[in-house]
Amino acid sequence: MVPGPEFRPGSVWLAGAGPGDPGLLTLLALQGLKEADVIIYDALVPDAVLALAPPDTPREFAGKRGGKPSFRQVDISLRLVQHARRGKRVLRLKGGDPFVFGRGGEEALALVAAGIPFRIVPGVTAGIGGLAYAGIPLTHRETNQAVTMVTGHDATGEVSGVDWHAVAQSSPVIVIYMALKHLDQIAARLVEGGRDPDEPVAVIASACTPDQVVLETRLGRCAGDAKTAGVMPPAIIVIGDVVKLRAGLDWLGAAAGRQLDPNPLGPASCGLAS
Amino acid sequence: MVPGPEFRPGSVWLAGAGPGDPGLLTLLALQGLKEADVIIYDALVPDAVLALAPPDTPREFAGKRGGKPSFRQVDISLRLVQHARRGKRVLRLKGGDPFVFGRGGEEALALVAAGIPFRIVPGVTAGIGGLAYAGIPLTHRETNQAVTMVTGHDATGEVSGVDWHAVAQSSPVIVIYMALKHLDQIAARLVEGGRDPDEPVAVIASACTPDQVVLETRLGRCAGDAKTAGVMPPAIIVIGDVVKLRAGLDWLGAAAGRQLDPNPLGPASCGLAS
Repeated sequence: MVPGPEFRPGSVWLAGAGPGDPGLLTLLALQGLKEADVIIYDALVPDAVLALAPPDTPREFAGKRGGKPSFRQVDISLRLVQHARRGKRVLRLKGGDPFVFGRGGEEALALVAAGIPFRIVPGVTAGIGGLAYAGIPLTHRETNQAVTMVTGHDATGEVSGVDWHAVAQSSPVIVIYMALKHLDQIAARLVEGGRDPDEPVAVIASACTPDQVVLETRLGRCAGDAKTAGVMPPAIIVIGDVVKLRAGLDWLGAAAGRQLDPNPLGPASCGLAS
Repeated sequence: MVPGPEFRPGSVWLAGAGPGDPGLLTLLALQGLKEADVIIYDALVPDAVLALAPPDTPREFAGKRGGKPSFRQVDISLRLVQHARRGKRVLRLKGGDPFVFGRGGEEALALVAAGIPFRIVPGVTAGIGGLAYAGIPLTHRETNQAVTMVTGHDATGEVSGVDWHAVAQSSPVIVIYMALKHLDQIAARLVEGGRDPDEPVAVIASACTPDQVVLETRLGRCAGDAKTAGVMPPAIIVIGDVVKLRAGLDWLGAAAGRQLDPNPLGPASCGLAS
């Protein structure tokens, strides 16, 4: 193991737990789990990750789902401050990465206001790791040199106020976090913004867990298909030609017997021709 | 430790080494380092990560820098195939994440063409982890609900052929990988596309390593400033108001004595007012 930094009493580590597979936890997050005096965790932190902490470490749930906070953000921040002021080593553990649609910045600024030292421990975000477990790369030389990540709803649960037309125009690949709730509206706005309704889409639910579901569909019918299939949050949605690569790169499917296509985009895509 | 999946002889793990700090390695990547029969690694894999492998594990350099390949991609792919066909457990280790501007998809498709089983091990990408070590969140409720990641140059080393005007319009925050080489052109195109030349920019070089350098500048003068400061690749560039949050969230700086501002965006930004 790497000798990690000291986890000081009275400090907070704001850490990402990765997208679901405990194997995607970082060494620093594991250190945090082992050394923390208290763990404050979100709904998206897998049980298999929490199980890596000593069984007698107190753990407190501070989850939110679907944009409806069950705990007010200010209360969570205050709880972190209170534990740290009592001299605890506080591990604040969030699904994915704390700084990617995770409100880690807000909690960290509350710690700054209270004079509590903290460390940020990045994690593998679901928009990258979840795609990889579906056999879909975020970027690929033949499909895209840019990718836009966007959240499907804001902190109040409403459809997020991004300029969907500009997003439609900008990147060949769009990854949407928390998209299921407003997927019909979002898909419609992207099509209005110029995206092809036939563009390939993958809906990845419970990414990187044994319950992972990957639904391949098209932009024009993805919301209906997700509903018909009964896909439940948490889900990541990816739009663009990278989705076609799943036919060649679904390594989890291959381990279960799926035959992969080495040329999912055509004869040159395996790279051996370049 | 987590009981990981079996690393089978004759298979390849395409793994991300994270952005620089060995503490950001995943448990699966560490397992790969411990169990591999041979390690094929890129220039951006830190020595401190390679040091976690047993000292007698053969390791082969397959690096590229600045868009000038020192090894042809096809040769790297063939090397992976050859080692696997000899029954080796092959760890292909890349900086950051293999599927984020890492050409992991190309190498994996070459494995598919050769009938070699593989696993993708995502890693923390520099565009997220590198920013976090500079105290800059990729997203923050008050600044952005979308972020665009883009590469500064393509596989040939030329300025990447993305629609820079559309990128300028789409996301309040833009993260550019491998941007240093063409930064003058890129910044000019973003300003032509409507971005404010006064917009805050951070240039983060050697992210998450003891040599990390963070240069805070403005879009209109970032290329000149980076040159004057002698910033060297590898570097990540982030454009947008999230850069202002560094005044509050530079936790590495704070550990070295920097006074942090709990309200870098104004009175409401610590979240305690919401």
